[in-house]
Amino acid sequence: MKTRAAVAVGAGKPLEVMEVDLEGPREGEVLVEVKATGICHTDEFTLSGADPEGIFPAILGHEGAGVVVDVGKGVTSLRKGDHVIPLYTPECRSCPSCLSRKTNLCTAIRATQGQGLMPDGTSRFSVGGEKIHHYMGCSTFSNFTVLPEIALARVNPDAPFDKICYIGCGVTTGIGAVINTARVEIGATAAVFGLGGIGLNVIQGLRLAGADMIVGVDLNNDKKAWGERFGMTHFVNPSEVEDVVAEIVNLTRRGADQIGGADYTFDCTGNVKVMRQALEASHRGWGKSVVIGVAGAGQEIATRPFQLVTGRSWMGTAFGGARGRTDVPRIVDWYMEGKIQIDPMITHTMPLDDINTGFDLMHRGESIRSVVIY
Amino acid sequence: MKTRAAVAVGAGKPLEVMEVDLEGPREGEVLVEVKATGICHTDEFTLSGADPEGIFPAILGHEGAGVVVDVGKGVTSLRKGDHVIPLYTPECRSCPSCLSRKTNLCTAIRATQGQGLMPDGTSRFSVGGEKIHHYMGCSTFSNFTVLPEIALARVNPDAPFDKICYIGCGVTTGIGAVINTARVEIGATAAVFGLGGIGLNVIQGLRLAGADMIVGVDLNNDKKAWGERFGMTHFVNPSEVEDVVAEIVNLTRRGADQIGGADYTFDCTGNVKVMRQALEASHRGWGKSVVIGVAGAGQEIATRPFQLVTGRSWMGTAFGGARGRTDVPRIVDWYMEGKIQIDPMITHTMPLDDINTGFDLMHRGESIRSVVIY
Repeated sequence: MKTRAAVAVGAGKPLEVMEVDLEGPREGEVLVEVKATGICHTDEFTLSGADPEGIFPAILGHEGAGVVVDVGKGVTSLRKGDHVIPLYTPECRSCPSCLSRKTNLCTAIRATQGQGLMPDGTSRFSVGGEKIHHYMGCSTFSNFTVLPEIALARVNPDAPFDKICYIGCGVTTGIGAVINTARVEIGATAAVFGLGGIGLNVIQGLRLAGADMIVGVDLNNDKKAWGERFGMTHFVNPSEVEDVVAEIVNLTRRGADQIGGADYTFDCTGNVKVMRQALEASHRGWGKSVVIGVAGAGQEIATRPFQLVTGRSWMGTAFGGARGRTDVPRIVDWYMEGKIQIDPMITHTMPLDDINTGFDLMHRGESIRSVVIY
Repeated sequence: MKTRAAVAVGAGKPLEVMEVDLEGPREGEVLVEVKATGICHTDEFTLSGADPEGIFPAILGHEGAGVVVDVGKGVTSLRKGDHVIPLYTPECRSCPSCLSRKTNLCTAIRATQGQGLMPDGTSRFSVGGEKIHHYMGCSTFSNFTVLPEIALARVNPDAPFDKICYIGCGVTTGIGAVINTARVEIGATAAVFGLGGIGLNVIQGLRLAGADMIVGVDLNNDKKAWGERFGMTHFVNPSEVEDVVAEIVNLTRRGADQIGGADYTFDCTGNVKVMRQALEASHRGWGKSVVIGVAGAGQEIATRPFQLVTGRSWMGTAFGGARGRTDVPRIVDWYMEGKIQIDPMITHTMPLDDINTGFDLMHRGESIRSVVIY
C-alpha cells in the first residue's frame, strides 16, 4: 500500500513529506493507522546526526497513537479496530529480561530494532524500491506503519489520540521514573532538573506519589509557572544562585535534619554536568538520583566515589521503567480518570505537512510538546 | 592515667610506641582496655599522608576489641567488664539519620569525630601536655582508649578478642556490603574486584547470601586459593585476559540469558578505573555495583550515562551499611556459631612494639590481616 510519511533523508536535513510504499504485516506483525504523534527530543537527537546509531533514510517518530487496521498471521492479542500505542520498548513477556521481574528492557527484538528493521531483518518501508528504515521500532511519522504485536499496547478506545500519543514516550518516561525506578514514597523531597516535557511529567509523577517538596530547576524563569501547574512547590534558577547544589541542599533541610539534600533527584536535561549536580544534591545516606536525559555521544558522567560511599545511589531509567503492554494502558486510564494531566502540555498541533515547524518550535524552546495530527 | 600507644607523629613516618597520658571518661564516655586491634588499609591511608583529612599527631587504629574498664556519668548501656567492639560509625538511635531507617551513617558526633576530638570538642590523649588527636573516634592503637557510649557495641564475652577485632571494620564492611547495601538474593551472580581483607569478606557474605556464582578478580594469582577458601567459584586475573569486563559478562551469561553481566559487583580496590569496570560488568537492566574501596583524594569515577539508563545502579557502602550497636553483636554471634570464618584471614599477629611490621607486611601484600595483641 501507499502511505504519506515524513522521511528523514539525511543527518541535519529537514524531514521530507512524501508518499512511500508500505508492505503489509507479516507473521506476528500489525498494521496501524497512526492518528497522532508527538515530536520528541529523541527524534531531534537522531535527525541532527548526534546519535551515533542513527540510520538514514528512515521514518522517525516514536510517540504515537492509532488504530489497528490489519493483523498478520499468528497475532492473537490484537484485532482490527483496537486502539493502540506503539512501544519503542516492547514487552514480549518471555525473554530473560521480561521474566526477570527486575527490568522493563525487553530484549526480544533489540538487535533488529537497533538496525532499523523488523524482527525478520527486513523493512516494510520503501520508495521506488529503495529501502527506508524503521526507527525505534515505531516510525510514527508515517500515517500507516507496521509493528510487531509485542510492541503495541491496547488502550481505552474512548481516549483521544492527540493527547494519549504523549503517553507513548514523555508521560510514561517522567511518571515511570518516579514510580517504577525511584519508587518515591509519600512525604519525600525531590528535585527535578530541566522542566521540559519530561521534567513536567516527573513533577506530576511526584505529586501522584505524594512528595512533600518538589523543587524544579531550570535556567528559564518562564518554566516556574509551568512547573507549578503540575505540582512543583519550589523553583531554582541555577543562573540566579551561587551554587545550585548548595541551594537545593539548603531548601531541603527539614526539621532536625541538619544535613539536607533531596531524597530523590532527577536529571531531565541530558547534560552530564547537570547529572552530577543532581547526584550531589541528593541526600547523604539515602539519596537516589535518576538519569533520564540522553547525553551526547561519548559524553561521560563523573563524581567523587565518596558521594556513593556516603550513601547516594546513581541510577537511570529508560521508558520510565514501564512495561509497555502492562503499564501504558493503566496510564491512559489515569489520564481518563483525571489523575494526571496531559492537555496543557500539548502546546502545539499541526498537520504532517508542517512537521518541521514542530522541530523549529522545539529548537526555540517555545513548545512543551508539539503533536502532529493526521 | 598512663597507657602505651603507637603514635602517628607525622605523615609518612613510622608509628612511635610510647607512653601517653589518657584522661578518664567524661559524661557519656567509656574507658576501654583494648585487647587486640587489626591494622587496616584506612590506617595506612591516613598515615601515608594521602588522606586530606588526616591530622597529626594522632593515635590511629579503628578495628579493635576490648573490655570496659570504667564508665562516665550518665552511661546506662554499658558497665565495667563488658566486652566491646569500638565503632567508627556510631549508632545513637536518635539523630535524623538513625531515625530514617534508611542509612547507618549516624551523624550524632560526626563533626568532632572528623576533627579527631571527643564529642565535647576536646581530646583525652596527650604527651607532656601536648594534645594527641583521636582517630575515627576509636584510637585502638592505644592499649587504653576512651570512646562515647554510642560508639561501642557490647558483644558475646566468650568471643576471642584477637579474632573479633576484625569485625570492627573489615568483616562487617565486606559482609554488610552484601547483605545491607546490595541485598543480594539466593541464586544471584556476583563479581568481587580485589581479594584483600575486604574482598574475601564480601565473598563470604555472598556465600552466606546464597549466591550461585561468585567471581573473584585480582592481579595476584595467589589470591585464587584464598578466594576459594571463602566461597569463590570462579577467578579472573585481569592481566591474563583481554578485557576483564567482557570476561565477566561472558562468565555470567546463564541459560537463555544472552546478555550476561553479574547481578551484583563490588569494588574492593579503591582504584577508580576498577570501580568503572565493576559497574560496566554488572548486568544490563538490574545490575547493582557497590563501591567499597576508598579512592585517593580528588580522584573521580566516570562512565557513560547510558550504563545507568540501561538499568545499572551505582552505589556505595560505608561500614557495610551496618548499624554498629545492632548489627555488630550479631556478626560476632555468627562467628561463634561458625556461620562465618575469621581465623584464616588473620595471617599475622604481633605485640604493639612491632606494629610497624604489620604495615610493612601490608605494603608487601604478604598479609590478609595483621592483628596487634596487647
